[in-house]
Amino acid sequence: MTMTETLELVSANKCFGGWLKRYKHHARALDCEMTFSIYLPPQAEESKVPLLWWLSGLTCTDENFMQKAGAQRIAAELGIAIVCPDTSPRGLDLPGEHDSYDFGSGAGFYLNAKREPWARHYRMYDYVNDELPSVVRQHFPVNGRESISGHSMGGHGALVLALRQPGRFSSVSAFAPIVNPMDVPWGHKAFENYLGDERGDWRPYDACELVAKGASRQPLFIDQGEADQFLEEQLKPERLETVCKTHDHPLTLRRQPGYDHSYYFIATFIEDHLRYHAKYLMKR
Amino acid sequence: MTMTETLELVSANKCFGGWLKRYKHHARALDCEMTFSIYLPPQAEESKVPLLWWLSGLTCTDENFMQKAGAQRIAAELGIAIVCPDTSPRGLDLPGEHDSYDFGSGAGFYLNAKREPWARHYRMYDYVNDELPSVVRQHFPVNGRESISGHSMGGHGALVLALRQPGRFSSVSAFAPIVNPMDVPWGHKAFENYLGDERGDWRPYDACELVAKGASRQPLFIDQGEADQFLEEQLKPERLETVCKTHDHPLTLRRQPGYDHSYYFIATFIEDHLRYHAKYLMKR
Repeated sequence: MTMTETLELVSANKCFGGWLKRYKHHARALDCEMTFSIYLPPQAEESKVPLLWWLSGLTCTDENFMQKAGAQRIAAELGIAIVCPDTSPRGLDLPGEHDSYDFGSGAGFYLNAKREPWARHYRMYDYVNDELPSVVRQHFPVNGRESISGHSMGGHGALVLALRQPGRFSSVSAFAPIVNPMDVPWGHKAFENYLGDERGDWRPYDACELVAKGASRQPLFIDQGEADQFLEEQLKPERLETVCKTHDHPLTLRRQPGYDHSYYFIATFIEDHLRYHAKYLMKR
Repeated sequence: MTMTETLELVSANKCFGGWLKRYKHHARALDCEMTFSIYLPPQAEESKVPLLWWLSGLTCTDENFMQKAGAQRIAAELGIAIVCPDTSPRGLDLPGEHDSYDFGSGAGFYLNAKREPWARHYRMYDYVNDELPSVVRQHFPVNGRESISGHSMGGHGALVLALRQPGRFSSVSAFAPIVNPMDVPWGHKAFENYLGDERGDWRPYDACELVAKGASRQPLFIDQGEADQFLEEQLKPERLETVCKTHDHPLTLRRQPGYDHSYYFIATFIEDHLRYHAKYLMKR
């Protein structure tokens, strides 16, 4: 892509010596206008910095993580930029798009839809994996080293993007990810409606399936709250644990007693994740 | 007060090893049901801990600070509980109560109203200063040492509560406080409507007037963003600076270049404030 994208600045807040900025742009992959947030640490004023992608969960926008996780403090110390995309196309009014919290707007599941009326707009995989990275590299002082993390649906997105593309991300982690979306209610509903009935089309978006397929050997670092209200029905980390063990895939799964699915859980452990990514991002 | 208040638990989230809890209770001072948040650090499971009162600004509830400031991390390290009251009576429908963001609901200004229809319910000074502290001391493992801080309208509240009661709080600080509400638009509107036309009734709620009166000698610690959108019209820290200088009242006013009025500003400097309060709260 050689054409320079046009970005419209929505807001800018100084934060821990760096800047949190929100931008609007026309997303070609999604054929709609999108907003994203980027935190630029103080170091970005002097030199190019590495970048962490953060993918958020159901119902979130680009704002929730930046407002609630407290990640900027550590990013400012380590010299890491953070980009938060939105979680679905916006500003459309497709039939049924706004009817439920776990499908349609706020619930793009980081995939490329095949079924109508979703196929034209709901292409969050391409948006998050290709278009937005290209936009970010054009406009901001980033050095090309990128890691990825996310929460819940966004944890699923982070694992899928990393496992499908060995070498693309320096490191990957997740908080309470949906590790086996094909076979839990949230993912089953989304995959059936976005992708159709063919389970073969679902596998490229399922972390357990991707580990079993064995394309990547990248270590996975995951935190999961033991008091998470979605643990038993939607998250099922034991399935990832089993498949990683079977296929000898490196996994660090920390079960955190008493923690739930909220941003208070993320805020508590985000420092560990940023320091984990920094080890890889700063490696010579 | 000997009667034990009834509290209804609304939610509980584990956070940095401690617990963030929200409770509902009937507030007698306000004659309505109120919700407050309390963060109990891990140390509170073993022994009684000191307490920081946080008073929020216009439009906030008990939740904003707990979600956005990142204070729990430091409170957990230092062993300090934090209580956030709501910013006005709730659940009423007084004429005009919900018409503007800077008066009525979400804008109680931490005073006891004298004018109708506000006088019966809008008694946030008594609620925050007497009733809620009594409730908290009855139900939670706090040791009686209390400091106070707040933001904007809540910074005004913190300064006023502390300056009127020498010795009541171990220490006081504020972020971007309304230091001279009598003579700025936000405060003038609130005082006129809640208190009436008599400026003598306004003075006990104005930090600059209270410093001039000289009842307290307690040091004031204040952070103010230089890019704060309300700096020139509503906040006017130079007035407090002048009156403190004239009356030899100890003031540390830090002007922070580039920072605005948002929670990103608070999040950046809350650690300094908590460590400041800890020095006083832990003093033997």
